[in-house]
Amino acid sequence: MAYQPSFTAAMLVIGDEILSGRTKDKNIGPLAEALTAAGIDLKEVRIIGDEPSVIANSVNTLRRSYDFVFTSGGIGPTHDDVTADAVAAAFGLPIGPHPEAYRRLAGHYAARGIAFTEARQRMARTPEGAELIDNPISIAPGFRIDNVFVMAGIPAVFQAMLTAVLSALPTGMAVISVTIPCPFPEGDIGGPLSDIQARYRTVAIGSYPRFDEAAPTTEIVLRSRDEALLEAARIEVEEMIAAMSRGAPLPSLGQ
Amino acid sequence: MAYQPSFTAAMLVIGDEILSGRTKDKNIGPLAEALTAAGIDLKEVRIIGDEPSVIANSVNTLRRSYDFVFTSGGIGPTHDDVTADAVAAAFGLPIGPHPEAYRRLAGHYAARGIAFTEARQRMARTPEGAELIDNPISIAPGFRIDNVFVMAGIPAVFQAMLTAVLSALPTGMAVISVTIPCPFPEGDIGGPLSDIQARYRTVAIGSYPRFDEAAPTTEIVLRSRDEALLEAARIEVEEMIAAMSRGAPLPSLGQ
Repeated sequence: MAYQPSFTAAMLVIGDEILSGRTKDKNIGPLAEALTAAGIDLKEVRIIGDEPSVIANSVNTLRRSYDFVFTSGGIGPTHDDVTADAVAAAFGLPIGPHPEAYRRLAGHYAARGIAFTEARQRMARTPEGAELIDNPISIAPGFRIDNVFVMAGIPAVFQAMLTAVLSALPTGMAVISVTIPCPFPEGDIGGPLSDIQARYRTVAIGSYPRFDEAAPTTEIVLRSRDEALLEAARIEVEEMIAAMSRGAPLPSLGQ
Repeated sequence: MAYQPSFTAAMLVIGDEILSGRTKDKNIGPLAEALTAAGIDLKEVRIIGDEPSVIANSVNTLRRSYDFVFTSGGIGPTHDDVTADAVAAAFGLPIGPHPEAYRRLAGHYAARGIAFTEARQRMARTPEGAELIDNPISIAPGFRIDNVFVMAGIPAVFQAMLTAVLSALPTGMAVISVTIPCPFPEGDIGGPLSDIQARYRTVAIGSYPRFDEAAPTTEIVLRSRDEALLEAARIEVEEMIAAMSRGAPLPSLGQ
């Protein structure tokens, strides 16, 4: 196949409250969708707790394995917000108040007559040399250091930061996908579909059972960066379904 | 502190469709809640795609780091269901039809007049020596090999398998938690709360901002296996809030 440029990414979700089940993550799905639209392949997501050494080790593993790493959580003002320190440790960089972040936060609180406490000042700290990621919702910025993008866990803030980040990133060639509804259950199509997959190595063929009808059916999803190959594979899948329909298959009530 | 027995766990979510954003995971939250209730500490979750070598490597890393590993996804009948093979490879075990799984599936399809295709027979394959995990929803079982529990991705099936698995596992001493609503924003309480955390090393104090009132408030969550220490920390947090309330703090409109 032709050379297909693409970028890879990982996400690191940070927070004890996700692992305890108290809070349900709301950022993985939107990040996955946004990266897919930008032609960036999300290859891995990890969810870990608020432990500095675990965060630092995970950041180091992921930043060396993928083009971009996006983190969520742990950048607020309290003692359990340890992400900035852990990321600085991962890079072996000192951490301190970022002048522009400090200026924005100081101005924000002064204008509202709110004390700029030591806790709030923590939100201005970044590893040395970090670039800020704007936070149009609640001021306290995220930051980028090298290929790691450190963002808030609160979904509205994460989403706003992500929009800002993605508008400035190089995008890859987008993956095109087609979804083909199939009236047969997975157990009927598994053999012939596998044969088609074997002929199209650069088209990822996914098969997803549906149980929302009286009998189980399947959604077949084809994904590729090569439009011509995708179309060829699509025709083969539709021919497979048509042939099976003509063959008056057995009644299908099981997966 | 007294010796606090506990077990640790990791979850491995397997599926291209989660990483592309097409499907939103619905299993992490319920697993996290169920493990917390069982006194098992969920320490890490990873989401990866349908790539056998990535699955095998992840299984090996996680099973050596934690007491239990729970996987979801990739055990259906089609070519993109590669979890059983990858888990067998991780353990260096041969894979083949599990006699009891084969018997259950063959009987299920025979009773319904559905062809027991080669694709459906794939769902009977386990690594040699695996124990089955019952599937009361759609028959095709999951399996346990050593400390790894391989379960379905479809939420209703995952949930049923998890219930079966947890009823047979040793449980740890449950973590007790108390949630204290706090009328002040995180930026006001960050300092004094950090002081309390420093005095209670075995009580995890989490601070979560809330933005659903006119002014931001905080939920403070204390978690520990030691009830007496938890109670002592709770009293200190409530005294902190009471003292701040008497102090007529500045109006608080910012985080």
